[in-house]
Amino acid sequence: MREIKIGLLGFGTIGTGVVKVLQDNAQLLQDRLGAKLTLARIADLDIQTPRAVTVAPELLTTDADAILSDPAIDLVIELIGGYEPARSFVLKAIANGKHVVTANKALLALHGAEIFAAAEAKGVDVYFEAAVGGGIPIISAIRENLCANRFTSLFGILNGTCNYILSRMTNDGDDYGAVLKDAQELGYAEADPTFDVEGIDTAHKLAILISLCFGTRVRFKDIHTEGISNISALDIHFASQFGYRIKLLAIGKNENGQIEARVHPTMIPDNYPLADVHGAFNAVRLVGDFLGPAMLYGRGAGMDATASAVMGDVMAISRDMLCGVAGRTPALGYVPEAIKDLAIKPMDDIVSQYYLRFAADDKPGVLSQVSGILGKYEISITSMIQPERQIGGGVPIVMMTHDAKEANVRKALAEIDALAVIKEQSRFIRIENELG
Amino acid sequence: MREIKIGLLGFGTIGTGVVKVLQDNAQLLQDRLGAKLTLARIADLDIQTPRAVTVAPELLTTDADAILSDPAIDLVIELIGGYEPARSFVLKAIANGKHVVTANKALLALHGAEIFAAAEAKGVDVYFEAAVGGGIPIISAIRENLCANRFTSLFGILNGTCNYILSRMTNDGDDYGAVLKDAQELGYAEADPTFDVEGIDTAHKLAILISLCFGTRVRFKDIHTEGISNISALDIHFASQFGYRIKLLAIGKNENGQIEARVHPTMIPDNYPLADVHGAFNAVRLVGDFLGPAMLYGRGAGMDATASAVMGDVMAISRDMLCGVAGRTPALGYVPEAIKDLAIKPMDDIVSQYYLRFAADDKPGVLSQVSGILGKYEISITSMIQPERQIGGGVPIVMMTHDAKEANVRKALAEIDALAVIKEQSRFIRIENELG
Repeated sequence: MREIKIGLLGFGTIGTGVVKVLQDNAQLLQDRLGAKLTLARIADLDIQTPRAVTVAPELLTTDADAILSDPAIDLVIELIGGYEPARSFVLKAIANGKHVVTANKALLALHGAEIFAAAEAKGVDVYFEAAVGGGIPIISAIRENLCANRFTSLFGILNGTCNYILSRMTNDGDDYGAVLKDAQELGYAEADPTFDVEGIDTAHKLAILISLCFGTRVRFKDIHTEGISNISALDIHFASQFGYRIKLLAIGKNENGQIEARVHPTMIPDNYPLADVHGAFNAVRLVGDFLGPAMLYGRGAGMDATASAVMGDVMAISRDMLCGVAGRTPALGYVPEAIKDLAIKPMDDIVSQYYLRFAADDKPGVLSQVSGILGKYEISITSMIQPERQIGGGVPIVMMTHDAKEANVRKALAEIDALAVIKEQSRFIRIENELG
Repeated sequence: MREIKIGLLGFGTIGTGVVKVLQDNAQLLQDRLGAKLTLARIADLDIQTPRAVTVAPELLTTDADAILSDPAIDLVIELIGGYEPARSFVLKAIANGKHVVTANKALLALHGAEIFAAAEAKGVDVYFEAAVGGGIPIISAIRENLCANRFTSLFGILNGTCNYILSRMTNDGDDYGAVLKDAQELGYAEADPTFDVEGIDTAHKLAILISLCFGTRVRFKDIHTEGISNISALDIHFASQFGYRIKLLAIGKNENGQIEARVHPTMIPDNYPLADVHGAFNAVRLVGDFLGPAMLYGRGAGMDATASAVMGDVMAISRDMLCGVAGRTPALGYVPEAIKDLAIKPMDDIVSQYYLRFAADDKPGVLSQVSGILGKYEISITSMIQPERQIGGGVPIVMMTHDAKEANVRKALAEIDALAVIKEQSRFIRIENELG
């Protein structure tokens, strides 16, 4: 029986999961592949701390080069994370003719172009299903089975920490700070949660999905990114009164070659499947010109789900190796010369419905002043509530708008906030209704 | 630029959709593939009726053999449906060394083994993503990216007609007959709806999914199949009172090598994503040992979504052809010699929770008689309601049970139905709670 030799870089949580799949499901993998997958070597700076799996001590090394320079190793799994040394290791593996499987979204979002070009030149494959959406096979789906579609939009709930926090805030009515603290104690949020809660991780993943869907390069820094730290229990409460939930969404759209690429808290109708994605789960909703809307849902992170995705990639590359081929599918699903540099629409130009919340003096004439300014900027209101409670030294006025231009909303709010009757900075949350 | 020549058998709704993809997205397909897909010939008995696409008249033929015997054609798309002549055409295409893409679930459920064996012997591929779940890439997902998992269960909403009818009954409170009539007028149900509403179509699809997930042959006739024609508005109403929705589910489970394979109306908790799959949409929920739970959701039928799936297969085979390989992935995702004949658990042995509805005389002592018999058969009750209304000459008693053995439930109901105080045949619906 033929054998494929695997080297693993990084023996942390996900690395442990990968070893577990290779051990627990060895026979299954062989039954599906018709060949044997052998874990030849594991490199990690820490080879002393016991893991949840037992491996032969001679497999362990602290020297990544023992894998990268071993001609017997066919395929390298990179699970170190971060930019360096992950980037150098991946490039060296490629230079030495090894296929690479990685879960490193930060690396790909920033250095993907360099890595994919190196792999193409060398005739090896770089697969990265685990970089987006944990166990959800979203990258394979876009690149392979759904690839006959011209995609028009994608919406992703791609960060388990944010989704957990928002779900808890929604269910319990608690404030952001309290839930974050709890999430940190439970291990759902890092001690420094910035990367997750400010939307950076989600934006890394969106950059990858936009390239795959729309065949365009997108620079991470061109993605408008807002996190969830400004979302209040009050806004979640009002959203539910209007029949909406608040999610941190990664949004990609392609309208006639102009791309929208943005990450921000978004209100979505509570009767759509995407609204029922709770806790640490992830989901991606895609619309293709023939497919119509589709959604893929599953665990967005964690040892086991991520290992499932990594091993799916290992199996795909192994099938190619057994056929003696490489580069069967280009990394981003398009032949490199067909990848474009489509323009990203400036945020000022996007058109959306908005949720607006003002804290105003409780006296006659306020509503007239506010709605006068909105009218001046062509922002029309679909519904409004004025609940009887105090916020920020005023009473809330909560509105939902028709489609309006972002630049106009920002100008109107600045003008409204300058009114003497307005007691704190006005809030807005974008709404996505077209998820049906 | 290299070219792949396609022959299309069947120019009906889905065939028209496939031609539309090839026409509308020709540049996209070329950008993704790096080669040109050419529609070389279309065979259909009716080449006169205008379609929603325009094709050069010389492409059309009434003679399938003009495709099957043309050595220039690389790949045949079979969209005729039914058993014959589809089976003979597919086998001839294979014998002549052509790859085959088909959407024909009935053909594969009954003749899959013969067709896959012929393809393997000849060294060509037979792909069939469009056979299950319309545009949802469920077959690719199981066979490719999720294949490192040992699957333990799958639940599918796989028939748009049934789901449309049940959704309408749930939303409008109407009875089955009225909604079916309406669905027929709207084109959501066939004039003879048996194939759909009695669960046969769903069972065909389940047979395919079970083979892919569990690596076992399953004979269509071994699948326990019940349709939705006995579901009443009353049961849907009571289900919602308990926090449940009724769906026609395809259920596959693998417990230590013993397989459950069944299609029947099922109550599922209304706060799970699967419960939010409405109308003509389909969804499949899978649980893998590493993946955990995942769900894929999308349009279950229709010209465009099905054409998307067909073209995904065409692209996959084309990628292999451009690399000069075939048989990269076995048809069922396992090397043929690893496919087993696992035993199917008899329905009498399954264990489930149940919804029970009795129509009884409205007098003291009835409940004691009924619950006495249930107790004798080790069926214990988690909750009960006795609404104040008349049904079938009695009053309803509605119960939800703990886990019970199907054989015991059937025996208990037979004994209860023989009681003088019971006024019509008692109803039961199985419940699936473990969808979290």
